[in-house]
Amino acid sequence: MAVDKILKLYKKKIELRLKTFLGEKIAEAEKISDSSKEIMQYIKEFNLRGGKRIRSILIIMAYKSLGGKNENAIIDIAVSAELMQSFLLIHDDIIDDDDLRRGGPTMHKIYAEKYKNYDNPEKFGESMAVIAGDLLASLGNEIISKSEFDEEKKLKLLQKFNKVVKLTGYGEIIDILSGLRTDVREEDISKMHRLKTATYTIEGPLHMGAIAAGASKEQLKILSEYAIPLGMAFQTKDDILGLFGSEEKLGKPADSDIKDGKKTLLILKAIENSNKEQKEFIKNALGNKNITEKELIKVREIIKQTGSLSYSENLAEKLVKKAKNAIKNSDFEKQGKDFFLEIADYIIKRDY
Amino acid sequence: MAVDKILKLYKKKIELRLKTFLGEKIAEAEKISDSSKEIMQYIKEFNLRGGKRIRSILIIMAYKSLGGKNENAIIDIAVSAELMQSFLLIHDDIIDDDDLRRGGPTMHKIYAEKYKNYDNPEKFGESMAVIAGDLLASLGNEIISKSEFDEEKKLKLLQKFNKVVKLTGYGEIIDILSGLRTDVREEDISKMHRLKTATYTIEGPLHMGAIAAGASKEQLKILSEYAIPLGMAFQTKDDILGLFGSEEKLGKPADSDIKDGKKTLLILKAIENSNKEQKEFIKNALGNKNITEKELIKVREIIKQTGSLSYSENLAEKLVKKAKNAIKNSDFEKQGKDFFLEIADYIIKRDY
Repeated sequence: MAVDKILKLYKKKIELRLKTFLGEKIAEAEKISDSSKEIMQYIKEFNLRGGKRIRSILIIMAYKSLGGKNENAIIDIAVSAELMQSFLLIHDDIIDDDDLRRGGPTMHKIYAEKYKNYDNPEKFGESMAVIAGDLLASLGNEIISKSEFDEEKKLKLLQKFNKVVKLTGYGEIIDILSGLRTDVREEDISKMHRLKTATYTIEGPLHMGAIAAGASKEQLKILSEYAIPLGMAFQTKDDILGLFGSEEKLGKPADSDIKDGKKTLLILKAIENSNKEQKEFIKNALGNKNITEKELIKVREIIKQTGSLSYSENLAEKLVKKAKNAIKNSDFEKQGKDFFLEIADYIIKRDY
Repeated sequence: MAVDKILKLYKKKIELRLKTFLGEKIAEAEKISDSSKEIMQYIKEFNLRGGKRIRSILIIMAYKSLGGKNENAIIDIAVSAELMQSFLLIHDDIIDDDDLRRGGPTMHKIYAEKYKNYDNPEKFGESMAVIAGDLLASLGNEIISKSEFDEEKKLKLLQKFNKVVKLTGYGEIIDILSGLRTDVREEDISKMHRLKTATYTIEGPLHMGAIAAGASKEQLKILSEYAIPLGMAFQTKDDILGLFGSEEKLGKPADSDIKDGKKTLLILKAIENSNKEQKEFIKNALGNKNITEKELIKVREIIKQTGSLSYSENLAEKLVKKAKNAIKNSDFEKQGKDFFLEIADYIIKRDY
């Protein structure tokens, strides 16, 4: 099956299971209090807004490629990755003060809006979003622990789940500090991408699927050799889309990275290769919450003129090639190999 | 052994294990980045600042009372409860804007102070504290999943751990809303205490110890019948200490509940039974961040004069009696029974 068909098929199955699971959680919360029911309803809506579901599809495909047969069980593990993703996004959005996510308001904005007639609705919204994230972390653990796998596998999956949360947290810290400090190096960015994206988005999900399928250490190693460069490519592409992508397709503003003062590789390389006036312009734009459309266009131009855009594009392509080689040389069965090779291309060519 | 000796002995053992475990996590984080190491060091310091360790001692004693023999293993489970406690406190402190915890700065204050020369250190401090809490949730799951119990028990313990996080979250939401709304009833407060304290502080820990010991459903039921009233008594006592206790012994200011606008049973009953002038005075004091020492003394006087203090004290005693009866009528072995009866009295008589 072609990769887009696989993505479409499993996206549907994952969303169906997410819907049922969170529906059960709403029923459970309703017995406790109106406010518990309310937060679970918001959580359900947030989870079903869409998203690429890349992490959960990687889990399913790694599982199937390594001979796993219990589709119901692996879909529960895939759903745990979606719950983790929402948990981390909701907390991230508080940290970055973002208003939009997946084409709708962020969790803290939902509550701030609903309680806008009370004292300090922004603070209230953030408090509720902190708790919403905590609840989602708990639900991610819950669905794994109740899945159909045997106890040994479930424990390994839970260990992996919590390890990924930990490493992503470490990556997020580097990310926040990079917005604060002026002495950010390419090395720091690379470390952050490795933790926040490569581990979190690619390696973690592939390993979870592989663990569920009972993979050997050797197989996990090959998946890492594929996942890490691919994850770095994914993030590099994400940064490009974050500045040059379509706001409509991304479901978030194309100026948020600049407003947040994120020192992406695009920015770093542009600063490195720009003249004094351009350098000043970018430094002033970075973290400017009131940047105009015109200024944003100029930032994009500088990034192109300095060769920074093509540097990132070339890097992403080189990384994808490296990732694909790791899989080509493996003894994975053909169907799995084909999928991994195709998804690697897909990741680099996507426009959302 | 008398209860204070047991508390002292296990407090020491728990803190020793906390120290070793978090020491290992610092070493692990050091390999990743300076900022990961830094947050783990703060997390360790925060965890070792003290605290009553009541939850973890309840875990150990429930385990031993029901015939559990592996002390090393149960101490790991006890440590998971401490990690959960720190996780929830750190997030709570952001929500309540509190500066002090366990006699030191709250996590968000630590970071805000350290990065005070950067832009918006308060926002930065809160961001780091959100992540510190998330890391602690992950560590709590980790230590259970790696403990010496068999796989079936570890899975049950992890399910319980995450269920307690979820229910505590629901309780916290009611708590936050009670600070916002004016139409809070005794019933809402009771529901919040049941979730935030009875489940979290007493029933959850007792069940974790019991599950680790392989308890029967009947035994878990008896523990619930003991735990719920005891937990409600614990919270009632906590609210009393929060207003009438010693700042030095509590490690946090004795005016924070008033400043946060918390509608405790003490406040609710005082409003119910006060004259017009007293009612106005309390309502104005509630949520007043700049309340003076003199005004605070007057709030305390009104609570005494209206009989609200004795109402809470009597309620706490009645609840403790109910809890003790559940244990007295059980078939638990004598040593366990004695401990549970003594700790119930201890909870009600403590002054910190």
